[in-house]
Amino acid sequence: MSKEIGITAKKAADLSEWYTQAVTKAELADYAPVKGFIILRPYGYSIWERIKEHLDRNLKETGHANAYFPLLIPESYLKKEATHFKGFTPEVFWVTQSGENALSERLAIRPTSETIVNDAYSKWVRSWRDLPLLINLWNSVLRSEITATRPFLRTSEFLWQEGHTVHATKEDADKEVMMILEFYRQLIEEALAIPVLLGYKSEKEKFRGALYTTTLEAMMPDGKAIQMGTSHNLGQNFSKPFEIKYLGKDGEMHYAWTTSWGVSWRLISAMIMLHGDDKGLVIPPQIAPIQVVLIPIYFKTEQSDAITAKARTIVETLKKEGIEAHADFRDQYTPGWKFNEWEMKGIPLRIEVGPRDVQNQQSVLVRRDNSQKLIVKDNDLVNEVKKCLSEIQSNLFAKAKTSLEEAVTTVTSYEEFKKTLDARGGFIRSCWCGSTECEETIQNDTGATIRTLPLKDEELFSKCVHCGKPATKVAYFARSY
Amino acid sequence: MSKEIGITAKKAADLSEWYTQAVTKAELADYAPVKGFIILRPYGYSIWERIKEHLDRNLKETGHANAYFPLLIPESYLKKEATHFKGFTPEVFWVTQSGENALSERLAIRPTSETIVNDAYSKWVRSWRDLPLLINLWNSVLRSEITATRPFLRTSEFLWQEGHTVHATKEDADKEVMMILEFYRQLIEEALAIPVLLGYKSEKEKFRGALYTTTLEAMMPDGKAIQMGTSHNLGQNFSKPFEIKYLGKDGEMHYAWTTSWGVSWRLISAMIMLHGDDKGLVIPPQIAPIQVVLIPIYFKTEQSDAITAKARTIVETLKKEGIEAHADFRDQYTPGWKFNEWEMKGIPLRIEVGPRDVQNQQSVLVRRDNSQKLIVKDNDLVNEVKKCLSEIQSNLFAKAKTSLEEAVTTVTSYEEFKKTLDARGGFIRSCWCGSTECEETIQNDTGATIRTLPLKDEELFSKCVHCGKPATKVAYFARSY
Repeated sequence: MSKEIGITAKKAADLSEWYTQAVTKAELADYAPVKGFIILRPYGYSIWERIKEHLDRNLKETGHANAYFPLLIPESYLKKEATHFKGFTPEVFWVTQSGENALSERLAIRPTSETIVNDAYSKWVRSWRDLPLLINLWNSVLRSEITATRPFLRTSEFLWQEGHTVHATKEDADKEVMMILEFYRQLIEEALAIPVLLGYKSEKEKFRGALYTTTLEAMMPDGKAIQMGTSHNLGQNFSKPFEIKYLGKDGEMHYAWTTSWGVSWRLISAMIMLHGDDKGLVIPPQIAPIQVVLIPIYFKTEQSDAITAKARTIVETLKKEGIEAHADFRDQYTPGWKFNEWEMKGIPLRIEVGPRDVQNQQSVLVRRDNSQKLIVKDNDLVNEVKKCLSEIQSNLFAKAKTSLEEAVTTVTSYEEFKKTLDARGGFIRSCWCGSTECEETIQNDTGATIRTLPLKDEELFSKCVHCGKPATKVAYFARSY
Repeated sequence: MSKEIGITAKKAADLSEWYTQAVTKAELADYAPVKGFIILRPYGYSIWERIKEHLDRNLKETGHANAYFPLLIPESYLKKEATHFKGFTPEVFWVTQSGENALSERLAIRPTSETIVNDAYSKWVRSWRDLPLLINLWNSVLRSEITATRPFLRTSEFLWQEGHTVHATKEDADKEVMMILEFYRQLIEEALAIPVLLGYKSEKEKFRGALYTTTLEAMMPDGKAIQMGTSHNLGQNFSKPFEIKYLGKDGEMHYAWTTSWGVSWRLISAMIMLHGDDKGLVIPPQIAPIQVVLIPIYFKTEQSDAITAKARTIVETLKKEGIEAHADFRDQYTPGWKFNEWEMKGIPLRIEVGPRDVQNQQSVLVRRDNSQKLIVKDNDLVNEVKKCLSEIQSNLFAKAKTSLEEAVTTVTSYEEFKKTLDARGGFIRSCWCGSTECEETIQNDTGATIRTLPLKDEELFSKCVHCGKPATKVAYFARSY
């Protein structure tokens, strides 16, 4: 592989440049003509398809159904929930013309669909028989992004899913919020091998329009946190302005309780930054569109047929076992070039089949995560491949879990807070009085925000790290993407 | 089911009103706040998901990959292919503001993605090694629709797929166009049970920017045709302005050949109109998200447990056989109400299980397409269900095939042409001189356009039906949606 094709930046030295090269050279994404927008290329899309499959399965098994809501939302709808409107309006793309005609009311390209969805729900929900109403949308949303574009991380359009549900009681809505949070945790920790802290957002950081927001927060190698997903109890904040009322079993009309929740292609950015290395991506087997790539190694022409036949057999055998295997027979590239290319693309496991392997009824396995090489007899191949994939998955998670744990620093003074943040970043675990004022001052001083408040209150171990007044909560602060 | 819930219009008497009621009451779709837009509700979306699965399988097996391209396209890009721009610009929704800022160049919400896709291809295609490039997009496009909204048929936003491919030669592009046309035929005829005429579009009717367009045309009960899908060879019309060039094996640079092709949720509208009846939808088993619905019929409380157990066993057994079965245990509705609701939703097969069925180790099957009732022993159930579903599928297609054949009238005079069109509509098969002038006059006189020119030229049987000059082609004219 020529220098031009391989990644030239070192991850440890320049994460930002390494990231851009990893994304574009592994052909996950490319820049689009309009600033802030990207093209999701086939390889990137196939990863997104795997993410969708994982989550969609859990959602469908628990009675959620997919639907599609219009892209354009009247401005008057956005305005119905005031906090929500105020939060989103600076980021909205506005449609003002159709053909050569000016529109009478400008239309927002959806920055999120709460308003248009809850408006429809007010027509669809009549009685307790219609509840719960559990709908999910796989779509794209647009929020104008003025800082530098970073694929999957800071883009003006992103692919995501947004769930919107209606329940009879606050308790039912609470349960939904927590069930979704658990589905997100499974997707992120078990499939993407990214350990996360789960918890609540502070009042300041919660979704604009929510009663409360729960979140999953991951830590990147540069000490900055990434919000991986959020699940909100919207209380009656949307059901009241949009008039979502139901006839209860008691014969009375009640305002319903709604939730919303989402994860986006941002998950891909965290996967890249966390697992990747100087050779490129490392995709966890559970998410990899290709889990095993087979490279035939031809030396002499007369052996080619036997090698090709063996390669085909292996791929077919693995596919029957439900393993995503692909043989790279392209004759315009050398084996070495192919090794580099597939390593850059992060395929978890490589199988090499050469003349000696045909002779000895074996093949060579090479793990992407630690470069370990194994010679495996044909009879053991399926089991060994399964074992390797499973080990790669757990190894990636275990390494990341250790990093996450090491990235949490417990501090009791504001000096220590600032020093730690500047020295190594990560999560700063500290006690907090609960006031938004302290939170804002800390953000202005240090750039760190409360990423999460633990689901179960942790024992207080000091006064508020900023103001010194009695603390009410343990909070995890960090700088973030 | 109360009058308000059931469909009150008769299909034969008022297709348009019947259609609107069928779509909204079966909860396929609902109207959105912005004129021209609809909401695809969960039931409609699950049908769309089935359509996607069918086509996606064929596309992936032949090396096509999915991707995602940005929603917003700079005006300057649209302008690069002049015919294309002229064709689409009256329908474009324009974004002119982001937040409170005016944009320097207005951005089009994609009416179709040829321009932005081909621009990216010019960067991705370097040599013959990169060809063919086979990409498909599942997204939504917006084209401002000023006539009355008709769900799935005339909407300003619609879900579709658009394929965009690059090839080394015209022959390769021709093959791609025809392969896709065949995939579309399979989807439409074999899954949706809708027979179609295949052929070319005339110069006047072809895609704006294409070298030639192939099409699939279905006939609706009111005598109007529906274009079901199109597959275009774009020639070098896009590769030249967008500079898609590749280094050939001959060491020279060549302009590539591109194609594009699409089907949309319009397929759903044809399925509804063609197969539906006064009770509501009739969904072909190959597309039905629920193929079999089981209704337990409880008379006395003491038998309830046995009925419920039997119902559960049946559904599990059918699911294991790959049949989409669902038991409706809701206790707030009577069996009669449920019969009507599921009939309205078009579920192909109903199974009833009552006390006598438990006793006699049997159940009752009721076909949606012809209301036929069968009493089936438990041992035969799986086979009988499979047989019924297969028969329903072929019966729906056979009926529609007969209608299509009957809808074609061969005419040799313009008088006959106009009389037939007014009396019964359908396809008017006639000889045509090949001039756009004749085609336009016919359209102005009668509202009929050339829907298709057969893939293989049919034998000429008269002079041009309009001008009387020597004919060059047999053409199928019709009024259309």
